[in-house]
Amino acid sequence: MIQKERLAKDFEAMARLTDVGDGINRLAFTDADWAGRQYIVDRMIDAGLTVEADGFGNVIGYKAGKNPDLPVVMVGSHTDSVPNGGNYDGVVGVLSAIEAVRSMTEDNVEHDHTIAVVDFMCEESSRFGAATLGSKAMRGELTLDDLHRLVDKKGISIYEALQSRNLNPDGIETMEYTRPVKAFTEIHIEQGKVLEHEQKKIGIVTGIAAAERFYVTIRGNADHSGATPMKLRHDALCGASKIILGIEEIASIQEEPPVVGTVGVVEVIPGAMNVIPGAVKLGVDIRSISKVARDSVVTLIKEFIDVICEKRGLSYTIEPIAQDHPVAMHPAMIREIEGAVKAVDVEYMTMPSGAGHDAMHWADVVPTGMIFIPCREGISHNPAEFADMADIITGAKVLDTVLRKLSLETTKLV
Amino acid sequence: MIQKERLAKDFEAMARLTDVGDGINRLAFTDADWAGRQYIVDRMIDAGLTVEADGFGNVIGYKAGKNPDLPVVMVGSHTDSVPNGGNYDGVVGVLSAIEAVRSMTEDNVEHDHTIAVVDFMCEESSRFGAATLGSKAMRGELTLDDLHRLVDKKGISIYEALQSRNLNPDGIETMEYTRPVKAFTEIHIEQGKVLEHEQKKIGIVTGIAAAERFYVTIRGNADHSGATPMKLRHDALCGASKIILGIEEIASIQEEPPVVGTVGVVEVIPGAMNVIPGAVKLGVDIRSISKVARDSVVTLIKEFIDVICEKRGLSYTIEPIAQDHPVAMHPAMIREIEGAVKAVDVEYMTMPSGAGHDAMHWADVVPTGMIFIPCREGISHNPAEFADMADIITGAKVLDTVLRKLSLETTKLV
Repeated sequence: MIQKERLAKDFEAMARLTDVGDGINRLAFTDADWAGRQYIVDRMIDAGLTVEADGFGNVIGYKAGKNPDLPVVMVGSHTDSVPNGGNYDGVVGVLSAIEAVRSMTEDNVEHDHTIAVVDFMCEESSRFGAATLGSKAMRGELTLDDLHRLVDKKGISIYEALQSRNLNPDGIETMEYTRPVKAFTEIHIEQGKVLEHEQKKIGIVTGIAAAERFYVTIRGNADHSGATPMKLRHDALCGASKIILGIEEIASIQEEPPVVGTVGVVEVIPGAMNVIPGAVKLGVDIRSISKVARDSVVTLIKEFIDVICEKRGLSYTIEPIAQDHPVAMHPAMIREIEGAVKAVDVEYMTMPSGAGHDAMHWADVVPTGMIFIPCREGISHNPAEFADMADIITGAKVLDTVLRKLSLETTKLV
Repeated sequence: MIQKERLAKDFEAMARLTDVGDGINRLAFTDADWAGRQYIVDRMIDAGLTVEADGFGNVIGYKAGKNPDLPVVMVGSHTDSVPNGGNYDGVVGVLSAIEAVRSMTEDNVEHDHTIAVVDFMCEESSRFGAATLGSKAMRGELTLDDLHRLVDKKGISIYEALQSRNLNPDGIETMEYTRPVKAFTEIHIEQGKVLEHEQKKIGIVTGIAAAERFYVTIRGNADHSGATPMKLRHDALCGASKIILGIEEIASIQEEPPVVGTVGVVEVIPGAMNVIPGAVKLGVDIRSISKVARDSVVTLIKEFIDVICEKRGLSYTIEPIAQDHPVAMHPAMIREIEGAVKAVDVEYMTMPSGAGHDAMHWADVVPTGMIFIPCREGISHNPAEFADMADIITGAKVLDTVLRKLSLETTKLV
C-alpha cells in the first residue's frame, strides 16, 4: 500500500534541500541538487533497490524481477529545479516511483521484469540553457562538443560541472543506456490548470506538445502621431494587433487535436508617445502534440499575416527560431494507465502535455506513458507551486497499479 | 517682390550655423543657436528693422508703420532645432517673415501698423524638456521657479543658460510683452504628409491640436504558453490588441473635426516566449483641435476598454499623463489668409495642425493664423527634412500678401 506519512516525510525532507532564496533552488549539479540526489539514492537503498549511476550522474535504482533477462520497466523523473521553483515539479515523479516500489515490496508482489527507477539529472534548462540533458545522455544524444559548448552564467561548462562531481564527461558519447527497456512511465504535476478546471484527479497524457517558434517583424511608417490623419497611416502596431488576434482565433478554431498559439514578446520601434509605430517585432509560439495540426495552424497564420499586411500597406519578414517535434504517447500505455485509473476509481481525462518532459526522449524507442496530477491554479516554476498530498497519493496509487501490471511478462504492449 | 536667390542664400547660411552631427544641431542657447540668432539679427538690421531683445533672448525686429500708436502686426517663428534636425522647421517662418518685410520695403508699401518680426527662443523641447518657452516668456507664463527647475542633461538650468548669454532670468516674471498686438501670423512646414498627399501648396491652419495622454495597464494571467488551452486563457496582450484596434477605429470614425489616436508605447510583462502575457501597458495619445471631439473620443475609448476587459476576464487601470488645451485659429485670420492664397493663386486646403507651435500661445489673446507649406514625405525633426524652395517662395508670397493687408488700419479682424 502507498503510505501517506512516509511519502509526505520525503517531500518535507526534499523541501529542506535547497540553496537560499524563495521556494526551491536546486539548479543542476549544484550542492543543493547533489544533496537532493543523495536523498533519493538513500531512499532507493532503504527501499532495497540496487543503485547505479551513469557518467552523467543519472541515478538508476533496480528492483530485480524474477527473470533478469527480460527488458526493464523504467519509471522516473527529475529532482533538479529552476531558480525559485517549487517542491513538486519532477520530485512527484521520483518520490512516487520509490513509494510504488516500496509498496510492491511490502505487498510481496511477484514480478517478472526488473523495475528501474530513474532520477534524471539536469532536466531544467535554467542553468545551461538546454532541457532534459540527463535523458538525452541516456539516449546517447549528447556529444562531447555539447558538454563544452553549454555553459552557465558564470561560464562553467557542463563538462566542468560533471568533472566537479567526479563524473565522466569524456565518456559521454558511449554513455547510451543499452539495457532493453519494456516501457517508460513518468508521473508529473500538470503545470497547467486544465485538471483543476475540469475537476479531474488524473490526466492521462496523449502526447507531448512541441513548439514552432518564429519572429514576425511588421513594418509601416513611423510618422508624427499628431500630424498624420488616421487614413494616411501605416501603423505597424495596428497591423500587429490584427495579427495577434488572428493567431488567437486560428489556434482556437483547431480543436482536435488542440493547438495553442501565443505572442509573448512584443518590441515596438521607436516606442515613443508622439511617433506612430514604424515597426513591431512579435515572438510567436505555436504548440501541439500533432505536427500536422500545428503545421496547418502555422500555415493559416502565415497566410493571415500576408493578407493583413497587404490590406494595410505594411511589409513583413518572418524569421524562424525553432521547430521541435511533438511526440505521441503509446496507445497501449494509455490503455494500461486508463485501466489502472479505473481500478483506483478516480475521475480522469486524457489530455496533451504542453510542457516538455524526460518522457519525450523515450517515446520514440519504447512504449511510453505519462500521468498528470493537478497543481493549484496551474502554477509551476514558482515558489507558489503546490500539489495536494491527497492528489499525490492518488497519483502514486495509479503508478503502483501500472507498475505491478507492466512488470508481468503476460502484459504485452501492442 | 519675394526674391528667390536672396531667400535661398539665407537658408544656405543658416544650414552652416550648426554644431557637429548629422543634419542641423542648434539646441536652444548653445553657441550654434546663438550664431543662428545673430544671423537673424543681422538680416533684420540689413532689412532696416529696429531690433530689440527681451530678457529671455527673444528677438523682435520692428518695421515702423505710419501710425506708431496702433497695435503691432506680429509675425514669427523660431530658429533653434532638435538634435539631428532639419533646416526648415522654424527657419521657414523667420526667414519668410524677414523676406516679406524686405519685399514690402522695396515695393514702398505704405502701412499703418508697425510690423514686428519675432525669432522666439527655445521652441523645441529637446534641451530642457519643455517646448515654446520663448513664447511663454513673452506671454508672462514662465516663473523664476520654472527657470531653475528645468535643466538639460548636463544639469544646466534655463536660469544658468540665460545668465551665460547675459540675459535677465531674474526679470522673467515681469517680462510679459505688453505692447498691444493686432494679429499674430506664423508660417511653418507642415511636418506631416497631408499637403503632399492632397497635392496642395498651402495649408490654412484651422486650429492647433493638443493631446490627452494616458497609460492603460491591462492585467490577465501569466500562465504557461504550452500548458494552457486557448479557452482557459486571460491573455492581457490579446485584450490590449483589441483595445489598440478599437482606438484606431474610434478615432477614425470621428471625422469632422478630425481626431487622431495613437498607441506608440507597449510594454509586455513578463515578455517571454513561453509565458502568456500577464500584463500589458499601453501609452495612448489622442489629439484634436477640438476639445469636445477629443473628449468624446476619449470617453468612447474608455468605455470600449471597459467592455473588452469585462468580456475577456481582464482588469485594467488608467493613469492620466497630460491633458493639454487645443486652440482654434481666428476665423477672420483664416479668411485673410484664404484671401491672400487666392490672390497668389495656388491650390490650398484648410487643415488642423497636429504639432504644437509658438502660435498657440498667442491664439487666446490676439487674432492668430498659421500657414503651412509642404515638406517632403512629412519628414521633420530629422536630417532628411526638406522643403522645396518653390514651395517656400509660395509661402513667403502668401505671408507678404497677408502682412500687407493686416498692416492697413482698414483691415478689421472681426
